[in-house]
Amino acid sequence: MQFARKNILDMESLSVDEINLILDTADRMKEISERPVKKVPTLRGKTVVLFFYEPSTRTRASFDIAAKRLSADSLSLSAGTSSMVKGETLIDTARNLEAMNPDVIVIRHPAAGAPHLLARMVKAAIINAGDGMHAHPTQALLDLMTVRENKGDIAGLRIAIVGDISHSRVARSNCIGFKKMGAQVVLAGPPTMIPKGIESLGVSVTYDIDDAIGDADIIMMLRIQKERQKNFLFSTEREYSRVYGLTKARLKNARNDVLIMHPGPINRGVEIASDVADGPYSLILDQVTNGVAVRMALLYLVAGGVRDADAD
Amino acid sequence: MQFARKNILDMESLSVDEINLILDTADRMKEISERPVKKVPTLRGKTVVLFFYEPSTRTRASFDIAAKRLSADSLSLSAGTSSMVKGETLIDTARNLEAMNPDVIVIRHPAAGAPHLLARMVKAAIINAGDGMHAHPTQALLDLMTVRENKGDIAGLRIAIVGDISHSRVARSNCIGFKKMGAQVVLAGPPTMIPKGIESLGVSVTYDIDDAIGDADIIMMLRIQKERQKNFLFSTEREYSRVYGLTKARLKNARNDVLIMHPGPINRGVEIASDVADGPYSLILDQVTNGVAVRMALLYLVAGGVRDADAD
Amino acid sequence: MQFARKNILDMESLSVDEINLILDTADRMKEISERPVKKVPTLRGKTVVLFFYEPSTRTRASFDIAAKRLSADSLSLSAGTSSMVKGETLIDTARNLEAMNPDVIVIRHPAAGAPHLLARMVKAAIINAGDGMHAHPTQALLDLMTVRENKGDIAGLRIAIVGDISHSRVARSNCIGFKKMGAQVVLAGPPTMIPKGIESLGVSVTYDIDDAIGDADIIMMLRIQKERQKNFLFSTEREYSRVYGLTKARLKNARNDVLIMHPGPINRGVEIASDVADGPYSLILDQVTNGVAVRMALLYLVAGGVRDADAD
Repeated sequence: MQFARKNILDMESLSVDEINLILDTADRMKEISERPVKKVPTLRGKTVVLFFYEPSTRTRASFDIAAKRLSADSLSLSAGTSSMVKGETLIDTARNLEAMNPDVIVIRHPAAGAPHLLARMVKAAIINAGDGMHAHPTQALLDLMTVRENKGDIAGLRIAIVGDISHSRVARSNCIGFKKMGAQVVLAGPPTMIPKGIESLGVSVTYDIDDAIGDADIIMMLRIQKERQKNFLFSTEREYSRVYGLTKARLKNARNDVLIMHPGPINRGVEIASDVADGPYSLILDQVTNGVAVRMALLYLVAGGVRDADAD
Repeated sequence: MQFARKNILDMESLSVDEINLILDTADRMKEISERPVKKVPTLRGKTVVLFFYEPSTRTRASFDIAAKRLSADSLSLSAGTSSMVKGETLIDTARNLEAMNPDVIVIRHPAAGAPHLLARMVKAAIINAGDGMHAHPTQALLDLMTVRENKGDIAGLRIAIVGDISHSRVARSNCIGFKKMGAQVVLAGPPTMIPKGIESLGVSVTYDIDDAIGDADIIMMLRIQKERQKNFLFSTEREYSRVYGLTKARLKNARNDVLIMHPGPINRGVEIASDVADGPYSLILDQVTNGVAVRMALLYLVAGGVRDADAD
Repeated sequence: MQFARKNILDMESLSVDEINLILDTADRMKEISERPVKKVPTLRGKTVVLFFYEPSTRTRASFDIAAKRLSADSLSLSAGTSSMVKGETLIDTARNLEAMNPDVIVIRHPAAGAPHLLARMVKAAIINAGDGMHAHPTQALLDLMTVRENKGDIAGLRIAIVGDISHSRVARSNCIGFKKMGAQVVLAGPPTMIPKGIESLGVSVTYDIDDAIGDADIIMMLRIQKERQKNFLFSTEREYSRVYGLTKARLKNARNDVLIMHPGPINRGVEIASDVADGPYSLILDQVTNGVAVRMALLYLVAGGVRDADAD
């Protein structure tokens, strides 16, 4: 199968075959990061722009490392150093970048739909690294990779996603991705943190975490996004932790082979206890490792690594 | 012809032959950015420091991409992360950089003359990426390249530069560059925005934009530099736009083959209407593309690409 | 001799043989920075993360240039752009970085001991680029290299370190390094700036600068760290300069072949007069040049350049 897609904007637009191709490619990419010489010449002479309008360590670093291990030239632009201080619009900034002939623009932006807008404006491939509360497809893909790697198959699994669903682009993209790959998804969280009508994605909803994790194969805890909530929707962190935090005590009601995930960064002792985050069933750091592999796969697939293989 | 110059400080110091060599080299460099593999080994093992004391997206990104496409190692330092927070002088910072054996230092600085000072202090080649309201030679060179590319020859053309001439290093460098290459330059803008005595550069002045653009081959609109003007020199943006903005209506009085330029970032609806900026006669994005090519040419010429060609 | 050490945390932990190996390696690395093509493939495919929690021009740039000249991929993270704005702990950030398979993490951190903590948590090699008021081993090693290069041998020399000893990780690391290599160290400064009990490092103390420099082979002036002192410990800069500043007049009492050092950035006219800093006996810029060489040596030694030499 050839990958014909130019942009990675959200999980809705990817087909099951495309997702499988991305995950298969990521599996092969992962091995490169385990070599003594972690670098292949595949994307030599390609220009990757990392355009981040929100602060980020792991996602930006993950893309940067992915680009460099494929020998692409990567370039970081952040809101602070950009012309936006001069009042330029996103579209004008993008057109100007485009005129410098980048191959891929990776964008994180606080406005939902910003990457889609860009994709219509520029010829470069666009990868959405998170837009507002809308989508975070590279996170969903690395989560799918991590689950497939540990469970063999995604279809038929039961995935519990717990926390502030309303403010989470991670939750949205994962709902769509896991459903598409044949898993069941149950969402749990306080009523104030679960958007009305979310069941239309084909997921079920509960306000009781113990109910959600009882027969889950995977428990994915979400970060309490303090910096995003204008009005904190729970009385105190301690109260949130008591009712919705994942602790060892609570895990006693879960399956023996349950696996724990979290998109990070974690709030220790709030949504997840330290001994759970660091425990034997935790896949949290595997997710980070697989993030580099998935991003290498995506850069390779959209930057024409396939098509230009002969030219290199 | 061999390029013997170590520094690119301003347009005054460049000869017509040197400018022609730079533009010819840039034409060849431009082709590299259109290849599937946009990279040549020419400056492998050269160190390029991008030292920006003012925020910048396009100029810094343009130099960074240029350096990387020539396989140089590039290193960005900005005022925020530098020792200047510890009170070090420009000269001491430069001497310290110099001790790390860079080949080229690209500098943008709010003080006119800072790059010239550096050039006297250090052995590395210095490229001025904009100093105060003084000079912006790489912008003028990319503008010359863009005009030559579209008009075939620069000599004999009539160039209208419109806007806030007083605060514009772009205008100053372009006046000198275009005059040197045999064009006529007419400046237009409100009396408060045109410095007294500017005619000594061999340019003519008018306060009437329609007068300036009537027989112009090129209209170069300048950005209203809001962030630079302590006291805004016009009553309102709307009033400025009405009297000095470039609109489709106003263009009816211009030549049929007139071409429109702007150094960017543009203020849509202020100095230039959107339908003009995005219209068929606009060269604004060509300027950005040519910016990478000109900077590749300059890095190549000053970093000894010619002289060390055998050693590579 | 093979270098078996994974981390460079402080001068205490390095043996005399290890220091000699580092300095010998740095001597060979220095030559690379003097070539027209300043780059060797030694660390191709290695990932070096520069993780700076404090602003820094020269140390970060020095490591970045060192990594690039060895063909490593280097990645800069600073406090401002990192997840720390989201409240993540140092350890979690480090574990996440680790999961991306870096080979070396270079860290500067305001808390003493942070690099040691990291070294226990992660498999990547850790290089301490300055931790609080504790240690700055790469500075001490470049100082040792500079002295050895100029004096032939370190053993038996008399080193005077003058200034704010209390707040200086440079002073601490240099005391230990020079003592270990067989030099005598005398510390001079105002009583408020010399910590009680420092003599336990095997150094002597005086409050009279003229006493310290009278028979010194090397005078190392420390920076007055204004930004670090909550309460400035001297009445005025001018007063400090008069009593403890290194001036030409004061140098008349020093040996004819005395050499002057300073870790930079210098406060001209405060702890050191301009004509001394720029004079013929000053090694200040040699220190900067040797900083790149020492950091190339350290990256090479800890990133397994020796062990993986065959694989490259």
